[in-house]
Amino acid sequence: MKDGEIEMQKMDGANCGRLLRDIEDLASIGGDERTGTNRMAYSKAFLEGRDFVKKRMEEAGLETRVDRVGNLYGLLQPTDRTAGFSKRIAVGSHIDTVPHGGKYDGALGVLGGIEAVRRLRAAGYGNRHPIEIIAFNEEEGNVIGGTFGSKAFAGAALEEAMLVPMEDHGITEEDFRSCRVSPDDYFCYMEYHIEQGGILERDQKEIGIVEGIFGIVRYRAVVTGKANHAGSTPMDLRDDALEKSCRIIEDLMKRTRRSGNTMVATVGTIRLDPGAVNVIPGKAEFIIELRDKTVAAVFRLIEELRERWQEEGLSLEEFLIQPETVCDPGLETAIEESAKALGFSTERMYSGAGHDVINTSFVTPSGMLFIPSIGGISHHRDEYSCPQDIERGVAVLTETIMRIDGGNR
Amino acid sequence: MKDGEIEMQKMDGANCGRLLRDIEDLASIGGDERTGTNRMAYSKAFLEGRDFVKKRMEEAGLETRVDRVGNLYGLLQPTDRTAGFSKRIAVGSHIDTVPHGGKYDGALGVLGGIEAVRRLRAAGYGNRHPIEIIAFNEEEGNVIGGTFGSKAFAGAALEEAMLVPMEDHGITEEDFRSCRVSPDDYFCYMEYHIEQGGILERDQKEIGIVEGIFGIVRYRAVVTGKANHAGSTPMDLRDDALEKSCRIIEDLMKRTRRSGNTMVATVGTIRLDPGAVNVIPGKAEFIIELRDKTVAAVFRLIEELRERWQEEGLSLEEFLIQPETVCDPGLETAIEESAKALGFSTERMYSGAGHDVINTSFVTPSGMLFIPSIGGISHHRDEYSCPQDIERGVAVLTETIMRIDGGNR
Repeated sequence: MKDGEIEMQKMDGANCGRLLRDIEDLASIGGDERTGTNRMAYSKAFLEGRDFVKKRMEEAGLETRVDRVGNLYGLLQPTDRTAGFSKRIAVGSHIDTVPHGGKYDGALGVLGGIEAVRRLRAAGYGNRHPIEIIAFNEEEGNVIGGTFGSKAFAGAALEEAMLVPMEDHGITEEDFRSCRVSPDDYFCYMEYHIEQGGILERDQKEIGIVEGIFGIVRYRAVVTGKANHAGSTPMDLRDDALEKSCRIIEDLMKRTRRSGNTMVATVGTIRLDPGAVNVIPGKAEFIIELRDKTVAAVFRLIEELRERWQEEGLSLEEFLIQPETVCDPGLETAIEESAKALGFSTERMYSGAGHDVINTSFVTPSGMLFIPSIGGISHHRDEYSCPQDIERGVAVLTETIMRIDGGNR
Repeated sequence: MKDGEIEMQKMDGANCGRLLRDIEDLASIGGDERTGTNRMAYSKAFLEGRDFVKKRMEEAGLETRVDRVGNLYGLLQPTDRTAGFSKRIAVGSHIDTVPHGGKYDGALGVLGGIEAVRRLRAAGYGNRHPIEIIAFNEEEGNVIGGTFGSKAFAGAALEEAMLVPMEDHGITEEDFRSCRVSPDDYFCYMEYHIEQGGILERDQKEIGIVEGIFGIVRYRAVVTGKANHAGSTPMDLRDDALEKSCRIIEDLMKRTRRSGNTMVATVGTIRLDPGAVNVIPGKAEFIIELRDKTVAAVFRLIEELRERWQEEGLSLEEFLIQPETVCDPGLETAIEESAKALGFSTERMYSGAGHDVINTSFVTPSGMLFIPSIGGISHHRDEYSCPQDIERGVAVLTETIMRIDGGNR
């Protein structure tokens, strides 16, 4: 194969149909059209789903293993051993879902990786590097903690909050530590995922080249006012914690928009005290979540907000910092060139959502490619990416593996 | 007695001390300094408190009775029967409290009424009308429904929502209806109460002459946006139900302030859906409560708001209308002239809080007088009115009873 055109012809509708069927089959384990998919880590449905994926891996000629936190690996040994390469090209994502989740988040990257292997083998491609498909466990964090499986893979520090749920699932610290891989065994890690946002759709681009993953900072915000009788306190004698919070939240949103075009701010929960229909709120508590290419940019904005609103009774307490992840530039170029060779339009972008790449990047150069999510919907049964986009993604993934591997086509 | 000066001299500190002691004693039934007072209608503490008040009434020479919803009445027959008046001058308030309530809300008016009778008798005043002190039950509405006792007194329609809690407390519809009094038996009703707001304190006035009670309208507001991933949805692709709600709430507050100087708007509860830290709110639900001298003014404002915000996904459903109450102008004048005769400063005002007067006004001309609430605090253990203000209030109440009664001083 010399170029993308030929590649595309070989990857016909029948092949994509096989991948789509795998996606539907896996989605039906733990869910249906009405409820969405419930395949939370360590659940019965999760274990059943992992068996399904393991079987698909084995049918594709991969040697499988499951580590002690439940990550599933499928290894394709080099067909072409002349170069003597032992470092793996890893391709993966996760197969757990959020409650009432969609069909594509996670599953697409694992099943798409298996499909890429099937295509390489069907085309008689002689891979020089081992190719490993990874199905991480508990990426979603509804059971033990976000990206738990890839944290174990990367040998990340154990977080306090994970200890009790780990024990509940019979996982010891020793189990966690046993999952750590050696950077010497890995050449790179690539993840194929739905965008979970509306940028590619808005910009009418086919493939997203992920440059990095937003850092996240969360703040506990408390706005203090004065609770009082809703009838007998005239407007000019009020110190309404909700009214002040509304001004602060509006200001936050405006400043976030002004800060550039990537930062996002979300207030997803709010609680009023005392919380009665006929009492002026004396206190409002809410969580501010800010994400951007760098957490430094977030800190600058929040310091400005903190100063401006301190006198109005705003106190901010930072309780989570997740630094940004920068993807490997070499992988970005490889994915981008593969997409262009196949005739697909591309867009460089950041991921606002977290992914296992956050952890794999500590082990090996890591990168991601996105396909459009219709309506930007995710973590919901309405999550959808069309067959054409799924096919483009798997074609790019397959092409990129070959480019990186540098083997004989 | 010819004027207020003399009256004031007779009502010396010792008398006020007796009233203050009654207030403290009643407050200690169902509460302490730490918890505030818990004397909710029909509770053990309430029944004990009512026994205490009944005893004070009887000591003051009143004939007592308790009706079938638990209202307590104490009647002073005319001493001067020459005029042949049978219509009662009623003075009252309520003796139930909110959970963790204050010492003065309600209790002041009942105990102040008893104190007025004690003073009239001590001064050898010959009343021509029967004087009735009423301690209404369940004014606060934490058990069955707001102003339940005076609703029974006035023969108001039974509300659907009251039926189950009534049954829970063994009160039949027949019991409720049996409490209805005849308008022919009443000359007027007066209520002495703390302001529960900060207007008198702000304006440095001693006695509030209540012209009426605000009408109340409550709306269930639902603002619809689009739930989405907090990381992967750029600011310009968001339809954030909370951000829109903040703009709507701010607009509501601004327009309320602009509408005049009496209307008040409160949003005391808000609920976000799905309510997760990392999901853009797709829906916000909150209750808007508006109060003003007329509900018509509220309707005008809300229609404007509804129109302006409809396109932004605001829907408003009215679920409570409590029309305004207008106090009797004759009583207002009597209270005002009594206060002036005693040398106290007065201010005409509306009550933003609801009171039993809402119901008594359907039976007989009704009026209220207020004294300052320090810091406007109410429904809280910090609720406070100073002894000087309490004394002024009871002096005005006593003077007003004499003026209305028109008897021989």
